[in-house]
Amino acid sequence: MNGEFDLIDLIVTTLGTTATRDGVVVGPGDDAAVLALPPDHELVVSTDSLVADRHYPAGACADAIGYRSLAVATSDLAAMGAQPAYATVALTSPELAADWAKRYAKGLAQAAQAFGMAIVGGNLARGPETVTVTVFGHVPRSTAIIRSGARPGHTLYVTGALGGAGLALGDETLSECSLAALEPSSTDPASPLARYWKPQPRIAVGVDLRGVASAAIDISDGLSADLGHLCRASALDCDVDLARLPLCPGAEPAVAASAGDDYELAFTAPPELRDAVRDIAGRTGVAITPICTVRESTGAGVRWFRDGTAVNVAAGFHHF
Amino acid sequence: MNGEFDLIDLIVTTLGTTATRDGVVVGPGDDAAVLALPPDHELVVSTDSLVADRHYPAGACADAIGYRSLAVATSDLAAMGAQPAYATVALTSPELAADWAKRYAKGLAQAAQAFGMAIVGGNLARGPETVTVTVFGHVPRSTAIIRSGARPGHTLYVTGALGGAGLALGDETLSECSLAALEPSSTDPASPLARYWKPQPRIAVGVDLRGVASAAIDISDGLSADLGHLCRASALDCDVDLARLPLCPGAEPAVAASAGDDYELAFTAPPELRDAVRDIAGRTGVAITPICTVRESTGAGVRWFRDGTAVNVAAGFHHF
Repeated sequence: MNGEFDLIDLIVTTLGTTATRDGVVVGPGDDAAVLALPPDHELVVSTDSLVADRHYPAGACADAIGYRSLAVATSDLAAMGAQPAYATVALTSPELAADWAKRYAKGLAQAAQAFGMAIVGGNLARGPETVTVTVFGHVPRSTAIIRSGARPGHTLYVTGALGGAGLALGDETLSECSLAALEPSSTDPASPLARYWKPQPRIAVGVDLRGVASAAIDISDGLSADLGHLCRASALDCDVDLARLPLCPGAEPAVAASAGDDYELAFTAPPELRDAVRDIAGRTGVAITPICTVRESTGAGVRWFRDGTAVNVAAGFHHF
Repeated sequence: MNGEFDLIDLIVTTLGTTATRDGVVVGPGDDAAVLALPPDHELVVSTDSLVADRHYPAGACADAIGYRSLAVATSDLAAMGAQPAYATVALTSPELAADWAKRYAKGLAQAAQAFGMAIVGGNLARGPETVTVTVFGHVPRSTAIIRSGARPGHTLYVTGALGGAGLALGDETLSECSLAALEPSSTDPASPLARYWKPQPRIAVGVDLRGVASAAIDISDGLSADLGHLCRASALDCDVDLARLPLCPGAEPAVAASAGDDYELAFTAPPELRDAVRDIAGRTGVAITPICTVRESTGAGVRWFRDGTAVNVAAGFHHF
């Protein structure tokens, strides 16, 4: 190893064909990447940082960090109904060892393969361990799903099941868990450790929700916090009964409602599109659960109930 | 201040109109930004991290960091001949104070204004102070300038003057320098401190070089290192006489040849396009200096000479 350029070569080599795909005009290795988008589409972009010891345990397996870092950013594209296409990755590390970099790139490549994305560039610098991933997707013009489109009377839905990743935080093997240990052959893909390290952004659901959902949001900071954002953006209130939440096995409802790290979507749709939503669940194989109806805001915001009694639910993950 | 969301609001408010411009369909505040590109254009993207105490002095003025962080990333777009349009910003900070965030956003907005860009999204997290900026530009299809297009006999040029930012590293006021102290009314815009904190990416030159330059590279890691990258990518060698380098006042040639932080471009063009290059210098007001002719590689790479004698020049900035 001879400095950053050899390391970059190693990473690009490890990425292999995931550094190229249709539409990559210039990939890694120049000043910037050059990318094609389909005609009459808009670009959708989001950026996410993971800081060691804050967003994942310090010393965790590099391949798991690689997978997770792309998945969490891509979930924001899914929430917009975008088709993910490209990503750039900025790594800072106190001393980026070749072994660590190679394993990180392997996990990243596995995620890129799973999501149909190309890693088109990045940056490498000495510094405290942090990973910043910027993802690029596209939508046909004017079809992106935003937070503010929900209307009174629309049904609020949640994809998948909640609370799984939250359970993983209490698992003492969390930081020793490599991707190999999470292969479906040996581990239930819905297990807490798999939910934490290999989140499955709801890409296909998001794409199918174009023209169906009136608003959508990624609930990675916890349903309680992110539902608040959606309701504020749309000027709506809602009451949620904890018993309606779809839960991972072993998850406690009030904890699952506030735990972050579930890369599921919450979205609204007009009641007359109920069958269209059901069809999307059938086509994608992802559970979609209606949890309440939103109504015009009187300032109450999101309220939580258990057996008809109002309960407090914590406000979700704080990045500060 | 009530956590990250208030801080994000403060930053977006401070950005003001630099968070919106033509083509921003959805700006900050949703899961992702939605952006339009001109038809028949390709997307050009680059990402750059600045780590406190490595890429700038810890404790430096936040507005200066803001300006510099956008400028250094945008220089990579200029090197591709791209028109800069949008950026996202991921900040990590041990305790992001409102005052710091507001000053950072002010500097960022000033740079965005200067470069015609919109800040369309970002991420905020607790962590060691690091700024990662991802920039998005566009070029008409198939016009991006890459590193590998130079041919034997082409002339190698450098924009602007070298060594200014390197001189600033020895200035003990570097970390106390705010943008206000660098206003052209009080300070020469070519002064070392201004060159360091307010680099001017060569956007107009880059755009005009489409169809003229055969290859181009941003020389922010130092001319010696980056010329090596260009020559390797194009399979060429060159001999450079230090006396040919355009220098900032006070800069020593061998130091200027290796010092990083000059956000100038090196590019090649066929000798018959000499007048076109001269016209670009006239139109943009940026000095463009021919420094040598590149030739087919025999493995010698880039060699440096002073008064006809070969000299060693250091290899430039290492991020590791």
